[in-house]
Amino acid sequence: MQPIIESVRRSSFEDVNCSVAQFLEVAGDWWTMLIVRDAFFGVTRFSDFQRRLGVARNILADRLDWLVSHGVFSQREYQPGRSDYVLTDKGRDLWLVLTAMRQWGDRWHAEAGPPVEMIHKGCGHVAQAVVVCSACGEALDGRDVRVQLGPGATDDSLLPL
Amino acid sequence: MQPIIESVRRSSFEDVNCSVAQFLEVAGDWWTMLIVRDAFFGVTRFSDFQRRLGVARNILADRLDWLVSHGVFSQREYQPGRSDYVLTDKGRDLWLVLTAMRQWGDRWHAEAGPPVEMIHKGCGHVAQAVVVCSACGEALDGRDVRVQLGPGATDDSLLPL
Repeated sequence: MQPIIESVRRSSFEDVNCSVAQFLEVAGDWWTMLIVRDAFFGVTRFSDFQRRLGVARNILADRLDWLVSHGVFSQREYQPGRSDYVLTDKGRDLWLVLTAMRQWGDRWHAEAGPPVEMIHKGCGHVAQAVVVCSACGEALDGRDVRVQLGPGATDDSLLPL
Repeated sequence: MQPIIESVRRSSFEDVNCSVAQFLEVAGDWWTMLIVRDAFFGVTRFSDFQRRLGVARNILADRLDWLVSHGVFSQREYQPGRSDYVLTDKGRDLWLVLTAMRQWGDRWHAEAGPPVEMIHKGCGHVAQAVVVCSACGEALDGRDVRVQLGPGATDDSLLPL
């Protein structure tokens, strides 16, 4: 199958007052979340990312620089003159986004079953991430919620039709 | 600030045996998740997506066709000869991905507070989506889990280093 489009000029979403757009501005690139996935798997070195992802060196270097400049990775000197890439707190906080992507892919595109399973170290079981309400603890999905303007809303904040 | 790259040739991730890559194959495009966001806000018509997103008509038409062909939207004739776009079950199941993106953007890029807040209709409170383990119900984050090969693993399935 052909990709949607062979070439795309990206708009910057930096000025859009929407937190989804802010995520996309930093991480909404095809390779970025695969780099972050591998970082959660313990990959830190350029050569390991490159080998596992099969991505061109210049693209990988661009993405890593971008992610460092946006505070998702920090660089760490592991021996004099050589540094690798470690997730920051902001980077580790992408875990739920990545997990939600994986679970969606498992549900809708993994005919032979999930390629990878998650084990909850605390209880030892194969587990799914399940979402509950922070206020009352009940299970939550899209049908159970509505949205309203928040404290950071501006004139261009988008609400439901 | 300049976007990362002005132009990118996208590889297809369709053949990669990774559910994150499968998500990215279908929805890993800068506009796609904003279209899906607006669909959760009740937007169904081409002209409404176009006005709210400020996206070029040809790009929007491409993305909607792509999302219909991948079962995220279905087309519905709302009057003879005119149709709009409605999220399928597969599309509605993107809610957690979208919510995780929004919460990350709120936490790290919303200096003035969240532009939009979520209300849990069941309890009436402003709420965050909190993740718990499907097996034991305990709160879960990236440090609490490990991964292993699942039933759909193949030779090219990637595990931790």
